[in-house]
Amino acid sequence: LRSGIPEVVYAKNKDFDDVILVLKRSAEEKGIALATKVRREHILKLEREKEDITKNLNIQDYEFIVNHKACTIVLKRRGYKQKIHGKIGLLAAGTSDIPIAEEVKVTGGFLGCKVIHSYDVGIAGIHRLFEPLKRMIEEDVCCIVVVAGMEGTLPSVVASLVDIPVIGVPVSVGYGVGKDGKAALYSMLTSCVPGLVVVNIDNGFGAASFAALLARKVYKP
Amino acid sequence: LRSGIPEVVYAKNKDFDDVILVLKRSAEEKGIALATKVRREHILKLEREKEDITKNLNIQDYEFIVNHKACTIVLKRRGYKQKIHGKIGLLAAGTSDIPIAEEVKVTGGFLGCKVIHSYDVGIAGIHRLFEPLKRMIEEDVCCIVVVAGMEGTLPSVVASLVDIPVIGVPVSVGYGVGKDGKAALYSMLTSCVPGLVVVNIDNGFGAASFAALLARKVYKP
Amino acid sequence: LRSGIPEVVYAKNKDFDDVILVLKRSAEEKGIALATKVRREHILKLEREKEDITKNLNIQDYEFIVNHKACTIVLKRRGYKQKIHGKIGLLAAGTSDIPIAEEVKVTGGFLGCKVIHSYDVGIAGIHRLFEPLKRMIEEDVCCIVVVAGMEGTLPSVVASLVDIPVIGVPVSVGYGVGKDGKAALYSMLTSCVPGLVVVNIDNGFGAASFAALLARKVYKP
Amino acid sequence: LRSGIPEVVYAKNKDFDDVILVLKRSAEEKGIALATKVRREHILKLEREKEDITKNLNIQDYEFIVNHKACTIVLKRRGYKQKIHGKIGLLAAGTSDIPIAEEVKVTGGFLGCKVIHSYDVGIAGIHRLFEPLKRMIEEDVCCIVVVAGMEGTLPSVVASLVDIPVIGVPVSVGYGVGKDGKAALYSMLTSCVPGLVVVNIDNGFGAASFAALLARKVYKP
Amino acid sequence: LRSGIPEVVYAKNKDFDDVILVLKRSAEEKGIALATKVRREHILKLEREKEDITKNLNIQDYEFIVNHKACTIVLKRRGYKQKIHGKIGLLAAGTSDIPIAEEVKVTGGFLGCKVIHSYDVGIAGIHRLFEPLKRMIEEDVCCIVVVAGMEGTLPSVVASLVDIPVIGVPVSVGYGVGKDGKAALYSMLTSCVPGLVVVNIDNGFGAASFAALLARKVYKP
Amino acid sequence: LRSGIPEVVYAKNKDFDDVILVLKRSAEEKGIALATKVRREHILKLEREKEDITKNLNIQDYEFIVNHKACTIVLKRRGYKQKIHGKIGLLAAGTSDIPIAEEVKVTGGFLGCKVIHSYDVGIAGIHRLFEPLKRMIEEDVCCIVVVAGMEGTLPSVVASLVDIPVIGVPVSVGYGVGKDGKAALYSMLTSCVPGLVVVNIDNGFGAASFAALLARKVYKP
Amino acid sequence: LRSGIPEVVYAKNKDFDDVILVLKRSAEEKGIALATKVRREHILKLEREKEDITKNLNIQDYEFIVNHKACTIVLKRRGYKQKIHGKIGLLAAGTSDIPIAEEVKVTGGFLGCKVIHSYDVGIAGIHRLFEPLKRMIEEDVCCIVVVAGMEGTLPSVVASLVDIPVIGVPVSVGYGVGKDGKAALYSMLTSCVPGLVVVNIDNGFGAASFAALLARKVYKP
Amino acid sequence: LRSGIPEVVYAKNKDFDDVILVLKRSAEEKGIALATKVRREHILKLEREKEDITKNLNIQDYEFIVNHKACTIVLKRRGYKQKIHGKIGLLAAGTSDIPIAEEVKVTGGFLGCKVIHSYDVGIAGIHRLFEPLKRMIEEDVCCIVVVAGMEGTLPSVVASLVDIPVIGVPVSVGYGVGKDGKAALYSMLTSCVPGLVVVNIDNGFGAASFAALLARKVYKP
Ligand SMILES: Nc1ncnc2c1ncn2[C@@H]1O[C@H](COP(=O)(O)O)[C@@H](O)[C@H]1O
Ligand SMILES: Nc1ncnc2c1ncn2[C@@H]1O[C@H](COP(=O)(O)O)[C@@H](O)[C@H]1O
Ligand SMILES: Nc1ncnc2c1ncn2[C@@H]1O[C@H](COP(=O)(O)O)[C@@H](O)[C@H]1O
Ligand SMILES: Nc1ncnc2c1ncn2[C@@H]1O[C@H](COP(=O)(O)O)[C@@H](O)[C@H]1O
Ligand SMILES: [Mg+2]
Ligand SMILES: [Mg+2]
Ligand SMILES: [Mg+2]
Ligand SMILES: [Mg+2]
Ligand SMILES: [Mg+2]
Ligand SMILES: [Mg+2]
Ligand SMILES: [Mg+2]
Ligand SMILES: [Mg+2]
Repeated sequence: LRSGIPEVVYAKNKDFDDVILVLKRSAEEKGIALATKVRREHILKLEREKEDITKNLNIQDYEFIVNHKACTIVLKRRGYKQKIHGKIGLLAAGTSDIPIAEEVKVTGGFLGCKVIHSYDVGIAGIHRLFEPLKRMIEEDVCCIVVVAGMEGTLPSVVASLVDIPVIGVPVSVGYGVGKDGKAALYSMLTSCVPGLVVVNIDNGFGAASFAALLARKVYKP
Repeated sequence: LRSGIPEVVYAKNKDFDDVILVLKRSAEEKGIALATKVRREHILKLEREKEDITKNLNIQDYEFIVNHKACTIVLKRRGYKQKIHGKIGLLAAGTSDIPIAEEVKVTGGFLGCKVIHSYDVGIAGIHRLFEPLKRMIEEDVCCIVVVAGMEGTLPSVVASLVDIPVIGVPVSVGYGVGKDGKAALYSMLTSCVPGLVVVNIDNGFGAASFAALLARKVYKP
Repeated sequence: LRSGIPEVVYAKNKDFDDVILVLKRSAEEKGIALATKVRREHILKLEREKEDITKNLNIQDYEFIVNHKACTIVLKRRGYKQKIHGKIGLLAAGTSDIPIAEEVKVTGGFLGCKVIHSYDVGIAGIHRLFEPLKRMIEEDVCCIVVVAGMEGTLPSVVASLVDIPVIGVPVSVGYGVGKDGKAALYSMLTSCVPGLVVVNIDNGFGAASFAALLARKVYKP
Repeated sequence: LRSGIPEVVYAKNKDFDDVILVLKRSAEEKGIALATKVRREHILKLEREKEDITKNLNIQDYEFIVNHKACTIVLKRRGYKQKIHGKIGLLAAGTSDIPIAEEVKVTGGFLGCKVIHSYDVGIAGIHRLFEPLKRMIEEDVCCIVVVAGMEGTLPSVVASLVDIPVIGVPVSVGYGVGKDGKAALYSMLTSCVPGLVVVNIDNGFGAASFAALLARKVYKP
Repeated sequence: LRSGIPEVVYAKNKDFDDVILVLKRSAEEKGIALATKVRREHILKLEREKEDITKNLNIQDYEFIVNHKACTIVLKRRGYKQKIHGKIGLLAAGTSDIPIAEEVKVTGGFLGCKVIHSYDVGIAGIHRLFEPLKRMIEEDVCCIVVVAGMEGTLPSVVASLVDIPVIGVPVSVGYGVGKDGKAALYSMLTSCVPGLVVVNIDNGFGAASFAALLARKVYKP
Repeated sequence: LRSGIPEVVYAKNKDFDDVILVLKRSAEEKGIALATKVRREHILKLEREKEDITKNLNIQDYEFIVNHKACTIVLKRRGYKQKIHGKIGLLAAGTSDIPIAEEVKVTGGFLGCKVIHSYDVGIAGIHRLFEPLKRMIEEDVCCIVVVAGMEGTLPSVVASLVDIPVIGVPVSVGYGVGKDGKAALYSMLTSCVPGLVVVNIDNGFGAASFAALLARKVYKP
Repeated sequence: LRSGIPEVVYAKNKDFDDVILVLKRSAEEKGIALATKVRREHILKLEREKEDITKNLNIQDYEFIVNHKACTIVLKRRGYKQKIHGKIGLLAAGTSDIPIAEEVKVTGGFLGCKVIHSYDVGIAGIHRLFEPLKRMIEEDVCCIVVVAGMEGTLPSVVASLVDIPVIGVPVSVGYGVGKDGKAALYSMLTSCVPGLVVVNIDNGFGAASFAALLARKVYKP
Repeated sequence: LRSGIPEVVYAKNKDFDDVILVLKRSAEEKGIALATKVRREHILKLEREKEDITKNLNIQDYEFIVNHKACTIVLKRRGYKQKIHGKIGLLAAGTSDIPIAEEVKVTGGFLGCKVIHSYDVGIAGIHRLFEPLKRMIEEDVCCIVVVAGMEGTLPSVVASLVDIPVIGVPVSVGYGVGKDGKAALYSMLTSCVPGLVVVNIDNGFGAASFAALLARKVYKP
């Protein structure tokens, strides 16, 4: 019954060589491949040894695109052009939330979405929120992914301000009772504002892949 | 920035008279009003005293529609016709999940969605799942709300079978470590299948209102 | 080293007769006495038997003042006039939070504070918040007690808008992961907005007694 | 009352020398010995110093067999032949679950079971599950050990498909609410599919030793 | 792929009429049917109205067998004889564990097992344990189900004494940190004695259905 | 509506360069800037490279003031003089609580408070407590911040001895059930002594910023 | 190896008739018998039907001694005299802790200890503590049982003041994070004052039976 | 009111120099001093630099006694002889529990107790338990400290076998639900065997200091 959506490599518990090989195999099949939650040392290793790896694997027509913040690797056939299937909004509450927001951005792009984003718009400076929200409404995004750690209030506030579906992504930053992201998760789950759903703590990939499915639904004419 | 979506009364901690009054005020404004999580004794009281209440409040052109399983009350101007903005799918894993599934159905209908549902399709009898999924694909629903308690597996299984956005609703049935619904919630949150988001335990309203927003996005031509 | 603050009876686990006797003893000493968290059946019993109790205990110069929502009983010598030591603000997010807000109001009044309050100003209707905040600034309250259940966002939002100390009171309403008030508590504790402190879930008394101590500090010229 | 089952060394908190000595003593008594949860640095140390150790301990007729993924060490008299007492099935949901699955495989083999295994058959690609299940039925395994992290759905799905006893092993991979394996554990415990029991998170040894006892029961003619 | 094992009705969240109807349908198909976790008031209602129900449903050739402690109802065609497929042992630690132990006994019997049981053999009087263990070894049971609340030690002790597979069932009796059965569950899961697996708290049904599958494996010659 | 309180940089998840740049920008605007929760390696880096940094950023009229225990950095225009707005008390229970106490001291000073402190006055040596409390009463502090890990008793004891508002700061020292500071947090939240509020575990900044707001309220003549 | 200590009936999950029968059997053997955690309705039933029960069971030489607060029943042969083996101290922090303190008192007396007690000496009125402590030192009690709910501070404070072994009993009174007694338990466990041990929440029986064993050790000359 | 018991340094969060200085000051006052939970790197540093430290601090008449397993340092005036005040028993369940058992042994010795110990007597090999228990009874120890991780069963079993007070020490070894020692703690707290009390996870010091107080009570003639 399924189709379309290309597979994404979850690299966290994989060996370096396995990650690269799976990326190669996927990219040869679909033209492009993505790995998320890549370990920092693997990212650095790839950058150091990119040339050798490319030669050894005989993938000179492909290029690696690394996002340090997001901890993602894309392998793409040169000249490959992603088809765009829709537009999604993306907000991050604080600077500590940017790595997960970037995971959303990279995954969303990979899955064919134009991602309109704005970071550092948390409620401690709530006035910064209005301009990007207005832009997202004008751009007619199909949904807004809102990334927030600590007390995770931003998704509720956004959902209370707009009539666009909001996907909250709790983040495991902070300390004390907020250290593992559960305070943010529970805050989002118990929000009494309608129009808000949630994914697992730090699951930028999950939010983006849901948003992409949704974008295709909206886009389909 | 907001609009459209009519307000829903959360009746759990409200007095009977307050619930009825807010419903009246809302229905007079919009033609229709909904209360969810109504206490069982208030449902019964309404049924016993419906006539008196109608007379006292002078709302003879309105009718009360009660759903016992869902614990919801709708107050509707006679002849009022809901505009339909889209279609959503609805699945429930076991018979214990039906009350929350009915909350989804009633709220979804109230918010202008045609709701195509099928109950008792949990993984203990997984073969019963295929027929309703096929129907939902044919009907081209914009998303599927999947209600499940105990170990909450069904949303993952559904999301693995179709390319339609899935909204999981964990339910607080069961006993032992599953008694408060957290096992189901965590199971849905940690699912490695893409295309699945979650709302709070027992939050049928939240799933339906998100689905309705999404339906309008898709519907809008 | 201590002084001033009159004792308050915590009635939750006390027998009816004990509550009344301690109130009598306190009121005879200070002119006024307060019991909080009185069990609903004891409130009703007092109302039914007020006359007999008054006669039996020989406290005809005293009057009982019961607050049903707050579950409090005040016993006051007729003609006794509370001295006012300051002003505090009080906000409640939803209708379900009113009982705890009323506990704050009664306790604050008992401890000599003028309490300026406004209810039902949660973020689902955030525009309703600005008028009461403006009034509290004009009245120059020494602090604002903010009562909120569910995801407990309101204290953060208030603290982000004003430079007045905010005391958050989480409330144990709601369901799912919000059922026991911990989601609200954790949300308030992890707020990244400065100027916000917290008391135990449902502890209206604690917030009011802290606010009263603070009010005396401010009031003292 | 007990007998048969040889002891297994739990090496996690033991010093290197202690692990090796206990293995030696056990192997001299029974012909073969096993250590599980050996620390990575001890595994590497053994490989570096195997020859010296063998000479120093005077165990030249014995050989060390190391499994890097499983973090196990077997010490075996050369020529020693394990008696086979039965057959067990073994499935792993994802690549991250392989280390614990290998612990099951090594321990099962050590305890005299033929282990028929198949990895990477999780529900994200549920169709890959049917072939190995058919093989296990044909081989008439006495039970199936199913290893799964994240949301831990696979054991439920397997138990719903076959009439063979299933032993679920939750794994502590993943992140967010799934980080410590409790989501997988609770999901397995609350499964409403009959025929499924559970061991502690990451306890491959426990699952295998139970399976081995069971295999002897079945095997015994 | 499945077969044999008849379905069992989980009655906890079902209406009385639904429970009886499902039992009727099942019994007509298989000759016998079982409902577990029946609510106390439904058990009493059945006993009061047994005759009417039998007449109304036209099931005069069937008899109801109620177990008050276990909260189970069996509906059986008169003269129907269960085939026996094997033998299982059953131990309960304290008198408070008897209801769940009885659920094991009834379910085990329903699934075709001879159940050899002994209650009140907890470690506070550990000497009472040896006689029943000896009998179970002599009877050659295929496994022992051990039911225990509070600190849940008994399954570990039994597994340390015999070479028979042990299935631990934690029970939600007790108070303080033991109130919900998690102390017992965790104690069983972390036991360092091999040969012990666990089911959900209070899940007598789960333990018995696993034991029955296992018994068939052993029995099959 | 807000004003006065200068922003404080939360450095925990920021890159070194970002921390320094934000400090520079803030200090140029207000004359002084503060970063808290600076990572140890960043503190050391700053000390090693202070001169280069100062030259490169062209901030020779500014000086860095580092507090190793508190993990704070202040950047201050030479000659800048903080205005004092009030006095706060500060107590720490044990030597392990000093880092967080120092965070309170530095932040309090930064926000214009004179901070009167006394460390190592926990209840294991309760007699050491009386002298500093007397001094704080004489100095007429507006509130007392009490920092305590382990069982977190000190704030309750202090609040029981004085009529000054107390702000408890739980600390994540210790081990076993006290390892993450929750035992201390819960102890403070459930204290039955009036006049005590709480901030997040290890949140010295939050306590100090609340105290500073409060001090301004009191100070204002 | 064991001896002396008579068994105590844990009545919480037992039927009324069973409790009475076990008491009878025990009392006939030892002259005296005790049941703890008796359900309130069973206490009342005993009082109503005492005469009939005595007659029916033919135990006219025995008397029932009921303690309503403690929820205990003692059955004692008339004229039976308990031998005293030592002295223990007993303190309760608040009035809500008295039921559990009474369970300690009754059990301690039953096990042959003179119990010197003082209630309502919690830290909110810490000065009331000194007099009873002095008396206990003079009486040379072998240990002090300290019963406390809410934040459970009293045991720490007592242990810091005396060189007598202290046994803390956490109590499940209160609300919010203190509702189930875990805040009190954790506070006692993490206390850094030496000389303090703990029993389960509400386990007055456990504290008293430990104290009695200890008293015998001390008493033995 | 207090006396006798010398203070013990809790070294976990202290700098190396502070630990040594406090030891020196204490040893000069009492002849002997003890630090517990010393960090491994500090233990090693002391061993490397012992001579320099001794010279620099001018403590040549003192000797350092380090216990690597216990992570303790004793500083003792040469020739100083500890007075013995009693005897305590000490049991450890597994080899992983030895570090905490050694903390008990060192602290017990430091506080003037003769400590009779036996390790590796857990229930997986329950027969090894009887010999040491017999010895402890013969030596007439005043109490037995029982150290156990994983499921923490040993203290219950010991308490069920002897009439000597038992102090359980849960240990944070193991993995899965037993990783932080809570399974062991809860198991001990919920034990229904009388005569058992508990200290915090890994708190060997607490158990020993309680035992020492108790020993003095018993010893005192
Ligand atoms: N079942 C429900 N669960 C959670 N929120 C709800 C539910 N029903 C209505 N609401 C929301 O609760 C708010 C109304 O709360 P109230 O003013 O207390 O009636 C609205 O924002 C609704 O969107
Ligand atoms: N006591 C029980 N606990 C858990 N599951 C049960 C229990 N009794 C029956 N079941 C399972 O629940 C399912 C029936 O659910 P239902 O269709 O709701 O009656 C079957 O798969 C049974 O195997
Ligand atoms: N209040 C209590 N809490 C915990 N255990 C108890 C209590 N009262 C009695 N016991 C113990 O429970 C056991 C009796 O259990 P039972 O056979 O169920 O009556 C005895 O070992 C007692 O030592
Ligand atoms: N291992 C330990 N665990 C808990 N408390 C300890 C430990 N060692 C010493 N203490 C206590 O900690 C206090 C000393 O703390 P400090 O002043 O930080 O050295 C004393 O009251 C000791 O009784
Ligand atoms: Mg919205
Ligand atoms: Mg899908
Ligand atoms: Mg503010
Ligand atoms: Mg099956
Ligand atoms: Mg065994
Ligand atoms: Mg005070
Ligand atoms: Mg003491
Ligand atoms: Mg004993």
